[in-house]
Amino acid sequence: MNIDAPQQTHPNYLADRAERGLDDDPRGTVVDLSAVPLVLDSGAELNHVSVAYQTYGALNANKSNAVVICHALTLDQHVANPHPITGKPGWWDVMVGPGKLIDTDRYFVICANVLGGCLGTTGPQEVNPDTGKPWGVDFPVITIGDMVRVQAALIDQLGIPDLFCVLGGSMGGMQVLDWAARYPNKVFSAMPIATTSLHSAQNIAFHEVGRQAIMADPDWHGGDYYGTGTSPKSGLSVARMAAHITYLSEAGLHQKFGRRLQDRQALTYGFDADFQIESYLRHQGISFVERFDANSYLYITRAMDYFDLAADYRGRLANAFRDTATRFFVASFTSDWLYPTAESKAVVRALNAAGAPVSFVEIETDKGHDAFLLDEPEFHDSLRGFLAAAAEARGI
Amino acid sequence: MNIDAPQQTHPNYLADRAERGLDDDPRGTVVDLSAVPLVLDSGAELNHVSVAYQTYGALNANKSNAVVICHALTLDQHVANPHPITGKPGWWDVMVGPGKLIDTDRYFVICANVLGGCLGTTGPQEVNPDTGKPWGVDFPVITIGDMVRVQAALIDQLGIPDLFCVLGGSMGGMQVLDWAARYPNKVFSAMPIATTSLHSAQNIAFHEVGRQAIMADPDWHGGDYYGTGTSPKSGLSVARMAAHITYLSEAGLHQKFGRRLQDRQALTYGFDADFQIESYLRHQGISFVERFDANSYLYITRAMDYFDLAADYRGRLANAFRDTATRFFVASFTSDWLYPTAESKAVVRALNAAGAPVSFVEIETDKGHDAFLLDEPEFHDSLRGFLAAAAEARGI
Repeated sequence: MNIDAPQQTHPNYLADRAERGLDDDPRGTVVDLSAVPLVLDSGAELNHVSVAYQTYGALNANKSNAVVICHALTLDQHVANPHPITGKPGWWDVMVGPGKLIDTDRYFVICANVLGGCLGTTGPQEVNPDTGKPWGVDFPVITIGDMVRVQAALIDQLGIPDLFCVLGGSMGGMQVLDWAARYPNKVFSAMPIATTSLHSAQNIAFHEVGRQAIMADPDWHGGDYYGTGTSPKSGLSVARMAAHITYLSEAGLHQKFGRRLQDRQALTYGFDADFQIESYLRHQGISFVERFDANSYLYITRAMDYFDLAADYRGRLANAFRDTATRFFVASFTSDWLYPTAESKAVVRALNAAGAPVSFVEIETDKGHDAFLLDEPEFHDSLRGFLAAAAEARGI
Repeated sequence: MNIDAPQQTHPNYLADRAERGLDDDPRGTVVDLSAVPLVLDSGAELNHVSVAYQTYGALNANKSNAVVICHALTLDQHVANPHPITGKPGWWDVMVGPGKLIDTDRYFVICANVLGGCLGTTGPQEVNPDTGKPWGVDFPVITIGDMVRVQAALIDQLGIPDLFCVLGGSMGGMQVLDWAARYPNKVFSAMPIATTSLHSAQNIAFHEVGRQAIMADPDWHGGDYYGTGTSPKSGLSVARMAAHITYLSEAGLHQKFGRRLQDRQALTYGFDADFQIESYLRHQGISFVERFDANSYLYITRAMDYFDLAADYRGRLANAFRDTATRFFVASFTSDWLYPTAESKAVVRALNAAGAPVSFVEIETDKGHDAFLLDEPEFHDSLRGFLAAAAEARGI
């Protein structure tokens, strides 16, 4: 492997930054893993894989304090540093940092942009070295397992033999489950949060709506929009709006917005955003397209749809965790209707059946799926307790 | 009023049928109500209103057996006859007909296409007589109350003094509530089914996604697509797909589709419809655009968003039904997450507070919101019992 030769990156977001006088690399560190070709679950071989990642804290002398955070669908490696495009705080800034719950004075935290992502790791907007052009929809379809194997190659590359903890919420939690099943000896503890072992029909349906919205946008150009000076912003924005509803709860929306009007005293009898919820959703759509690639959205949602961990283990989820020594912490949220508690409980049952040590907590909240990203004291307290015990057992 | 001069209708769907050698009028009967100009809730005045409707059965001698059925967002007046465009059975064929639950040998059933609709009643695709061109988005924004007042004018026109029953599900149920509140002396019994007195933030959000999908489609042409030979089919299809998910339940989707594959043995690692649920949703989108007008979708969803019956009665829902003699039958379905049981219960509480006679039933089903359209025996039994008692009280 040659870490001095990062893959040539599609110029869109890098060139944009250069024009704006920003010369830092928004990807964090980029490592070239192309010495180890990756055979994907689809059977396709992907050479020239690069991975962009961030780290926080330092690896200790006996390399026992590494924590891998796996990010969700539309997030990225910028867990605890300001986002290079939006300037907003890292997406888990509430959780990760010096003296925080995941204490970067104590742990060495790594988060990599997923395979298929759009912030530096190989994905559809990156250049295919074999053609010199961006992949577009010639990029092979990937799986959650593919993402995890790329992360494992990165950890190898960093010289870390095993991990104190792998954690993440939503699609991050899927990766956590796959990590624990695939590399039980490398994962001391695992925290799959607000997630599932299997993507449901309803969730596939919502993803399909988003994909159809993107592919219906004429600016998608059959996936070959890079270099056209445009991109399927309208379609991606609609996809985001639909998905965003599923990240919240009805009670939360009622609480936060209800039927309150946006900057007006009365209904306007028109199609403007009369209601605050409309204005909020439109903003979610518009701001998302500034930081996310539409083709990445297609590929990553597809990977999630394909996720069915039991299917990889002869149809029985417990098989995935047989004889594991990994300690598990499973958390769900009462108002999460994307990955309801029942799906976390199915994971817990499988872990019990496999004889794995597991703690489970269901957090009462009206914040919906997104609760895992927020300052939920009961969630944080539970996680803190589990982590402290695991750290003690690990001798950190 | 002049029933011999139906409004000039935009030629799209009529001309299509003429070309196909179909010379029946797909609208049913069309009546011109333009002698009574309609002042809308917005304050706009709408002249030249026509209404297309179907009837089943016959009015009895003392005119005591009239039943008005109010249709939902994407349905129409073709309750119990084959649909003129799709050829499919009427949408409530299971419920309405000779010898059926709503027995057309006994009752005179009337269903009118709603104001703003797209099957003959005045709406955005019809010709504005003042300009000679289709209304498009120059059509005024309408409300559920406006729809009901147009239906009341139709009933007047038909010489019917009052109604034995007004019933409907979903948006139809909103109209039922408005009918009962607005014309208590004209409504002997009322059946609001799977509905709400107030459109929630989450439901406004889903509608807004649909509208944004339509308006993002370049073929929408700012609403002025009539006569361009095209229409925003992609956008309307995405809107329908998103909405359709909300009409079903997660359990129902799991039961009906799960993660089963569509005409294939294994995942294809592509963006085709690998899963049955994807294929089903795409079909829902594609077939919908053949029978529905995109601008009508914008207007009718907006009317639903604006629905907040209590707001029209000094903020207290019970005020809407004060001193009513109308008998109410309220029904909800356990897996309906579009209009959950809690929203029906709020209606029941208001009716109780107003001293109105009300029966309430919550039906256990995994069929979601669409359960009201299906053959749900417990629902039908409950409705039958209520109807029989009401008919006896009415002396029918």
